[in-house]
Amino acid sequence: MNAPSHAHHLRPAIDLRPVPDAFINALQERFGAQCSTAMAVREQHGTDESIYETTPPSAVIYAESVQDVADAVKLAAEYKVPVIPYGAGSSLEGHLLAVQGGISIDVNRMDKVLSVNAEDLTVTVQPGITRKALNEAIKHEGLFFPIDPGADASIGGMTATRASGTNAVRYGTMRENVLALEVVTANGTVVRTGTRAKKSSAGYDLTRLMVGSEGTLGLFTEITLKLYPLPEAISAAICSFPTIEGAVRSVIQTIQLGVPIARCELIDANSVRMVNAHSKLGLREEHLLLMEFHGSPAGVKEQAETVQEIASEFGGNDFEWATTPEERTRLWTARHNAYFAAIQSKPGCRAISTDTCVPISRLADCLLDSVKEADDSGIPYFLVGHVGDGNFHFGYLIDPNNPDEHQRAEALNHALVSRALTLEGTCTGEHGVGLHKMDFLLAEAGVPAVDMMRTIKKALDPDNILNPGKIFTI
Amino acid sequence: MNAPSHAHHLRPAIDLRPVPDAFINALQERFGAQCSTAMAVREQHGTDESIYETTPPSAVIYAESVQDVADAVKLAAEYKVPVIPYGAGSSLEGHLLAVQGGISIDVNRMDKVLSVNAEDLTVTVQPGITRKALNEAIKHEGLFFPIDPGADASIGGMTATRASGTNAVRYGTMRENVLALEVVTANGTVVRTGTRAKKSSAGYDLTRLMVGSEGTLGLFTEITLKLYPLPEAISAAICSFPTIEGAVRSVIQTIQLGVPIARCELIDANSVRMVNAHSKLGLREEHLLLMEFHGSPAGVKEQAETVQEIASEFGGNDFEWATTPEERTRLWTARHNAYFAAIQSKPGCRAISTDTCVPISRLADCLLDSVKEADDSGIPYFLVGHVGDGNFHFGYLIDPNNPDEHQRAEALNHALVSRALTLEGTCTGEHGVGLHKMDFLLAEAGVPAVDMMRTIKKALDPDNILNPGKIFTI
Repeated sequence: MNAPSHAHHLRPAIDLRPVPDAFINALQERFGAQCSTAMAVREQHGTDESIYETTPPSAVIYAESVQDVADAVKLAAEYKVPVIPYGAGSSLEGHLLAVQGGISIDVNRMDKVLSVNAEDLTVTVQPGITRKALNEAIKHEGLFFPIDPGADASIGGMTATRASGTNAVRYGTMRENVLALEVVTANGTVVRTGTRAKKSSAGYDLTRLMVGSEGTLGLFTEITLKLYPLPEAISAAICSFPTIEGAVRSVIQTIQLGVPIARCELIDANSVRMVNAHSKLGLREEHLLLMEFHGSPAGVKEQAETVQEIASEFGGNDFEWATTPEERTRLWTARHNAYFAAIQSKPGCRAISTDTCVPISRLADCLLDSVKEADDSGIPYFLVGHVGDGNFHFGYLIDPNNPDEHQRAEALNHALVSRALTLEGTCTGEHGVGLHKMDFLLAEAGVPAVDMMRTIKKALDPDNILNPGKIFTI
Repeated sequence: MNAPSHAHHLRPAIDLRPVPDAFINALQERFGAQCSTAMAVREQHGTDESIYETTPPSAVIYAESVQDVADAVKLAAEYKVPVIPYGAGSSLEGHLLAVQGGISIDVNRMDKVLSVNAEDLTVTVQPGITRKALNEAIKHEGLFFPIDPGADASIGGMTATRASGTNAVRYGTMRENVLALEVVTANGTVVRTGTRAKKSSAGYDLTRLMVGSEGTLGLFTEITLKLYPLPEAISAAICSFPTIEGAVRSVIQTIQLGVPIARCELIDANSVRMVNAHSKLGLREEHLLLMEFHGSPAGVKEQAETVQEIASEFGGNDFEWATTPEERTRLWTARHNAYFAAIQSKPGCRAISTDTCVPISRLADCLLDSVKEADDSGIPYFLVGHVGDGNFHFGYLIDPNNPDEHQRAEALNHALVSRALTLEGTCTGEHGVGLHKMDFLLAEAGVPAVDMMRTIKKALDPDNILNPGKIFTI
């Protein structure tokens, strides 16, 4: 996806470490044309979808094999230079920025499907493949990989951030769907974690430790994932609500009744207006729930009838159906484009995205009070979310050159995170901590838990070369 | 459950560390009657269901609170004395044996349900509660906790071994069902991991690192679990097969078709004979699949019809139904008692249990060749398993005073594990590594992965006081 213009961004805290010429020379000798120090390349790799300004690495390695990754990390270890893995560049939290300098290892050329085991519903891929490319490659088998963040992210990046998205309410997140990994660690060793067995009690769960480690514990070079059979029947529906509370209470009841809904997304009226303006969709400009049902034809019908009944109780209108694959694609493209539609609704603006997730019973308490605060603030915003999981995103649209607006948006964000933590939730459902949520992580997990994370990091990466400055300070 | 006689067991490798009198005195001063050094108590706590002989700790602390656990660990840390958590004593792998000396911390008095959140399908418990007691406590809410190893294990122990059991084919294992933990670490610090939110990307997944750590990284003092609504309809069936291959191929096809079967257990004809002799059940003495279907009445009927059709193709006989709760309880009790029925079938014998788990497509390759080897060996055995997960257990029944029998049984075990690893499986699906599978873990995970586990262990427990000598050597 093309990133919008990055003219006006916030400067992250920068603490550059030395990158010796001898190191760059050694890289160039080992990697030749796979090593670039061109400013345009470096800037591209020091940029993501966060509010932060470009912070380029000193060089970019285009890795083509696990040996390339291991050799690059070994050289970096020798010179104690930071290493940042780079996939699709779609991080929202500053993960890719070289805030302590160093190099990026771009894994986009490692984009192969290595093996599909249709009979076990597993696939092994290289980290650079994107979720759309993976699904394209396996659809002839009648299988799909459901994890679906907005962007067409790389599987490596999705593993690193423990990503989820619209299908997680039914299929889980990367936590549940990564079976095994090949990882290059801080000294360049290649470690395999997990097997293709469905379950195991064989020692520490290194796979789950690596999933969500945001590039700070290792670089993934192979990833084994669970797959799912394409459902026999799929139907998608839109339901509009005059009040956001009606939409939210419908979702809570749907989840609590155990309806196995496959997607259950809220798009508030603000977002609908922005999406309509951006994509000419002609959606009804109310609060919408976008839903999808997977199963047997009878099962899908039963689920949809149950949810329609619940929605009606809470003031929801009749479902509008998207029955053909084309209509469904249009619907989910609208959902996935909400972020970009919003950014483009206010020229030069940036979005400060929130990512709280709370237990489903607390969703209304968390969301409705935060809507009121956002409305009262006068700051333009949009609200979308994987509400079936208790996860939603405000995007506060600010002028990055206006410190007052920025401060007020961050105050809204703080109030929301505090509320979510009080309600036994988390500051980040799926985006990760990166640069932006380090204080929130501390508030959420507490000093002892973050200290435990630091202890693990220091033990596995004593020179702090793997994506340093992310998740926590050392 | 009452342990069978432990007259003739194998001696584990023992490497006792000093337990200073001053330490025991300090424990007695802090804990009074909650501290016991009586030999009977120590022997009870140095015993489990493994093949190893009793290896008692020097003292047992009956903890009643997180403060008790933290204080006991702090004293142990001060004197560098090993600490072993003790729940139901049902480990099969020697987890509870004080092979390096030290103390046991018995958490059986910490057996409370702290909070049930029916609307979020979560519960928070203390570690000493057993799975049956938990289910008894929540059934009036219309909820259940599905993880179901054979024994009435403690939730703490099940968390420590990443346990699963008969329902895992549908509901997952402890890996998928533990949401959050309170843990006392090696220096007595209390750490909270995770939240009640369904998903999170907030830093390292400490919860999953702790699940399956076998007491070597921390002692659990609170555990938050997922719950499930009691199914609207449940039906259980037995299907007998003239050949084990027919049973196994039926299972593979059932899983590959995506039938959401809730339980799918194999009991071979040997086990059926032993169970019949032990419990007077009058089961047909062929290879049996024991199955359970959960869902709506129509859904359950549809699932059962599909599986009956598959089974018939592979020579399975007509299903015999267990429709009342009493009949179902009788059926699953028979399954859970298979181990004890087997032990009692040959006076003085011990069982060497295997625990391999392979991808479902490899199940027939792994299981059938191993059955042939076991038959050829002449060693009596039983075979049961969670075959829907690709996980099964041989129990080779040996006279522990007969080194030749023991050696031949271990040779069968080695051949089976090698086969499972070649087939991309794991040496332990659910029992854990403990004392007995350290070499297998090394063969499975490889030196770099086990080194990573050791590095984490050394960082979090530098004096190696938490259940030392288990999983790997330091």
